[in-house]
Amino acid sequence: MAEPKKIIIDTDPGIDDAMAIFVALRSPEITVIGLTTIFGNVYTTLATRNALHLLEVAGRSDIPVAEGSHVSYMKSTKLQVRDFAHGMNGLGNQNFPQPKSKPIEKSASEYLVEQANLYPGEVTVVALGPLTNIALAIQLDPTFTKKIGQIVLLGGAFAIDGNVNPAAETNIFGDPEAADIVFTSGADVLAIGMNVTRQVIMKSKFFFFILCSSTLVIFGQFVTHHIHDSIYAYTYNMFVDNDLTNLAKSDGIFAKYLCKILDHYFSYHRDAYNIKGIYLHDPTALLATVNSSLMTYTEGVVRVQTTGITRGLTLFFNKRNRFNEATEWSNKRTVKVAVTVDAPAVVKLVTERLM
Amino acid sequence: MAEPKKIIIDTDPGIDDAMAIFVALRSPEITVIGLTTIFGNVYTTLATRNALHLLEVAGRSDIPVAEGSHVSYMKSTKLQVRDFAHGMNGLGNQNFPQPKSKPIEKSASEYLVEQANLYPGEVTVVALGPLTNIALAIQLDPTFTKKIGQIVLLGGAFAIDGNVNPAAETNIFGDPEAADIVFTSGADVLAIGMNVTRQVIMKSKFFFFILCSSTLVIFGQFVTHHIHDSIYAYTYNMFVDNDLTNLAKSDGIFAKYLCKILDHYFSYHRDAYNIKGIYLHDPTALLATVNSSLMTYTEGVVRVQTTGITRGLTLFFNKRNRFNEATEWSNKRTVKVAVTVDAPAVVKLVTERLM
Repeated sequence: MAEPKKIIIDTDPGIDDAMAIFVALRSPEITVIGLTTIFGNVYTTLATRNALHLLEVAGRSDIPVAEGSHVSYMKSTKLQVRDFAHGMNGLGNQNFPQPKSKPIEKSASEYLVEQANLYPGEVTVVALGPLTNIALAIQLDPTFTKKIGQIVLLGGAFAIDGNVNPAAETNIFGDPEAADIVFTSGADVLAIGMNVTRQVIMKSKFFFFILCSSTLVIFGQFVTHHIHDSIYAYTYNMFVDNDLTNLAKSDGIFAKYLCKILDHYFSYHRDAYNIKGIYLHDPTALLATVNSSLMTYTEGVVRVQTTGITRGLTLFFNKRNRFNEATEWSNKRTVKVAVTVDAPAVVKLVTERLM
Repeated sequence: MAEPKKIIIDTDPGIDDAMAIFVALRSPEITVIGLTTIFGNVYTTLATRNALHLLEVAGRSDIPVAEGSHVSYMKSTKLQVRDFAHGMNGLGNQNFPQPKSKPIEKSASEYLVEQANLYPGEVTVVALGPLTNIALAIQLDPTFTKKIGQIVLLGGAFAIDGNVNPAAETNIFGDPEAADIVFTSGADVLAIGMNVTRQVIMKSKFFFFILCSSTLVIFGQFVTHHIHDSIYAYTYNMFVDNDLTNLAKSDGIFAKYLCKILDHYFSYHRDAYNIKGIYLHDPTALLATVNSSLMTYTEGVVRVQTTGITRGLTLFFNKRNRFNEATEWSNKRTVKVAVTVDAPAVVKLVTERLM
């Protein structure tokens, strides 16, 4: 077996960040050598607190946490955190104790540069929030793009509407200037956009409870015993096939922990998107480093719009078309962008690793 | 039969503008009451000259031509004409005489406002170039949006790459500020984007000549007389089915005129897009006014990005998604956007009307 890949997770926990971190710690294909924190789902201070807390839950306080930037790359972006999705504390409004551990002295960007120099070509950064720390690492050491192994980033909405507004996806909108720097930096970048992660849905226990109950209430007294049994068997099958139910049955510490915080996330998805499940944005991006064959990819130039009403828009160009003049996409370095995903396999792998 | 619709064509001729104007003059469903001119394929002065010339070719110098703006709405956009596609004179570099007729004294925007007031709710503007004149008409008379019947515009690239660069389509890129004004004006706007017009291709005679010749040369001496005849019959069928060949056989003045200027346009499409035919951008937009059932439409808010690398990008939002905050698409007036087109029917109708 190949040596596990060295991974640094740049994270803004965040409920699905917690899932991704736990999946990472349970994946023998990778070794988490550190976490760096960033604003996004929560402000950076809280992201650091939550990162330390999650490592304590996992019994892995040996893993260093480096606090990232509190402001965007240009220092001018008004930060917007997503408490409506993740709760005021970023972790489903559960009342967790303050972590005992502390972040290291180095900033996130300093730590990223240090590790890239220590293990040239060997470190993969999995960036689950705005790309400020990565852009600052490039600013700090222009050779970072050569020394880092790969940057797997969760961000962008390729050929679909955004989720902040019709133009922009959350993570890119959080720091468009940083994102444009990273996309055009020449580093080995793999972007997992919302067009892919919106296909990966962990189904909700709640949905099936409702379905079971209402089916039985509506039909229960009118059906023969035989038909009643069939309905029960049918709903039971849906029930045991359900992803979250599998998780809830587990005695594992990660499964037990997540079942506490996921309620908030399910409610948010029901209200905001009218779906009976949750998008596995962060775990999907993480699993791209564990098993790259879970997705297919295309390659081209990605630029990020930084002004006006489409600020934060990601525009992928694959060089198929020719234009009469040089464009802002000409002679720029290419990146890989995920196109399709084996969603059932991703959900299964996430569930298994968390049990 | 219903009374013909009154049409003003806002145009930058342009080879496919010439086709659209000729199709319009041959369509009993509509009456062309005037032409207004705009920069785009050529500068405005040449657009006016060409509009007058085309009406003289048609023997319709009774139709008034009002010259439009020589600069963009904000006066700041650097104009880029498309001589590479349409020739230095906009009409395939054929050496046509100067027109004897003159444009009217009124500017395009003054003429548009005048006609909308004269026939409230009855006039359709078919805008085949940048939307400067329409935006200026709205500026001149804010009630123009209520008095004009419909604005059918050729512009935008909805859910596909642009053709000026990966973000922007030519006509919108030509004056993004004007386009955003028109899209959000509240007028009855129907946008025919490049996503639709790129599906409407008039096939090239050239392609079939090559195919015929090479097939016969390669196989001719090896095949039996019988097979030879079959091949000939096959290629002949392709030949007579060919759109442009039909046109070339016609004795009509429009068909004869267009066959002179279309060579340049076919060459451009072969070099730029590697296709054996020409996109019927302008005639397709024109035919949306003749028979709206040739296309299907959706409705939503269209905004145009006016700054940065995606300047000229059109972003359609159909209100399906909800966002956590109000966006730049919220509470804006909707427009109709063409989604699908019966391309063979459009090509057939264009060919028939030009013969």
